[in-house]
Amino acid sequence: MNLADYFGPAVRRHRELLRLSQEELAERAGIDRTYISGVERGVRNPSLDVMQRIARGLGVDLDVLFATAREIATRQDS
Amino acid sequence: MNLADYFGPAVRRHRELLRLSQEELAERAGIDRTYISGVERGVRNPSLDVMQRIARGLGVDLDVLFATAREIATRQDS
Repeated sequence: MNLADYFGPAVRRHRELLRLSQEELAERAGIDRTYISGVERGVRNPSLDVMQRIARGLGVDLDVLFATAREIATRQDS
Repeated sequence: MNLADYFGPAVRRHRELLRLSQEELAERAGIDRTYISGVERGVRNPSLDVMQRIARGLGVDLDVLFATAREIATRQDS
């Protein structure tokens, strides 16, 4: 299991929990909306700094995002 | 608290727990030794894919590395 593959879905889950649009998250994180979309779809390879900005935009830190990634990955495997 | 700042120290802790040299971890992860050194010192900004390869080289996944990062950060703040 590579949790990197589930970082995007974890970002989407937290964004939707906050009822934020990709545009609103992009603005909070200081990142382009299309980049957020690419990260959520798993077609982007964000750097550690960008991942930290996305986490802050979601009001969580990276340990929380990867715990969510683990949860999503585990559920998909079951 | 930005856990990105503690990713390097977390990599170092797991590497030392396994009694691996930077050279050995670099080989396992398929990354240059000097890059591992830079990540551990926090002067590199690794991508998600590279971070996943480092985690695999340490025999853990990214949730575990960021949980260790949280532990190190919390202890340093106390």
